[in-house]
Amino acid sequence: MECGFSPIVGFRFSLHPMADDFVAIIKGALEETDTSAVWMHTDDVSTVIRGKQVHVFNVAKAIALNAAKTGKHIALSGTFSAGCPGDSAGDVYLDMGDAVLNNDHTRQYVSSQFALYPMNNPSYMDMIYREVDRAKEHGVFNESMHYASGIHGDIHDVFNFYEEAFSNARSEEYKHLVMTVSMSMNSPSHGGR
Amino acid sequence: MECGFSPIVGFRFSLHPMADDFVAIIKGALEETDTSAVWMHTDDVSTVIRGKQVHVFNVAKAIALNAAKTGKHIALSGTFSAGCPGDSAGDVYLDMGDAVLNNDHTRQYVSSQFALYPMNNPSYMDMIYREVDRAKEHGVFNESMHYASGIHGDIHDVFNFYEEAFSNARSEEYKHLVMTVSMSMNSPSHGGR
Repeated sequence: MECGFSPIVGFRFSLHPMADDFVAIIKGALEETDTSAVWMHTDDVSTVIRGKQVHVFNVAKAIALNAAKTGKHIALSGTFSAGCPGDSAGDVYLDMGDAVLNNDHTRQYVSSQFALYPMNNPSYMDMIYREVDRAKEHGVFNESMHYASGIHGDIHDVFNFYEEAFSNARSEEYKHLVMTVSMSMNSPSHGGR
Repeated sequence: MECGFSPIVGFRFSLHPMADDFVAIIKGALEETDTSAVWMHTDDVSTVIRGKQVHVFNVAKAIALNAAKTGKHIALSGTFSAGCPGDSAGDVYLDMGDAVLNNDHTRQYVSSQFALYPMNNPSYMDMIYREVDRAKEHGVFNESMHYASGIHGDIHDVFNFYEEAFSNARSEEYKHLVMTVSMSMNSPSHGGR
């Protein structure tokens, strides 16, 4: 278990193009994304990016968007984490500025599901309900379901909500926060959106 | 947020065949699996199964194995949950016997990553370290990494470990447990295993 009490945010994810040429799509999406503001490592199952929150969310969105622009059915699933005790502070890219490096505003419908896990926080259910209410206010709430909540809309609105929820669900007192997301783009199940 | 204080276990997952014929592979894997011991619902992003723990893990493994038998590169990612406050007890399949319905013992290499999130438990890090140690004892530990631990080996050994870890990381006092898993099979990145 390596995480930490530093302000670093991490996202461990897998990009799944449902296509025979999945290797080319994954490599293409990574090449088209400016990842210079985050630390990145890929193994045989997933990729992890770490750095300032603003860059971690920006890079995650850009990779998803670049993969989706192939028109193929793309899934992206992963876990955002911050404040885990036991982190090595080594892989830190916290000296970067705040200007995001990926600024493609192409619209892309995303249907997704997320769950918040504020760790060691007795009032964690209240925080979860509050962020689900925020999704409704932002117009990105799709539906309630077991173990998750459905969030959908344009990729930029969806990622804005996720970044805001991730900021709001942790505090100085309760630093360790985990948020799982599972996204689907260009799926035949989305009903043509 | 719908989960609960009943003994029901749930698994919300997505199956991702990295192939143009992903729809046929997903449908085939589901058809070849006996899912009659679990409640199941599929939406445009994921599928959730709920029931007795033994059946939830058995069905999850069978779906992964049946998809992998196509020889295509398959990913399965999802979240096991139990004991979440706020659950509706409605969709419960707890009156089933304990005999598992899927008994295909075909060997299949799996490389995977998992994370345990015991909720509202002040000693949650100890529980995580203990289960990672158990993986090492069982010979399925692959490597340490940020935010997760690598677990690999034959699919039956891997799932046995996951079910055991999920049992051991919750208690009467701390009922709410979440475990994320991300699995990869038949990947060109697995080095021929």
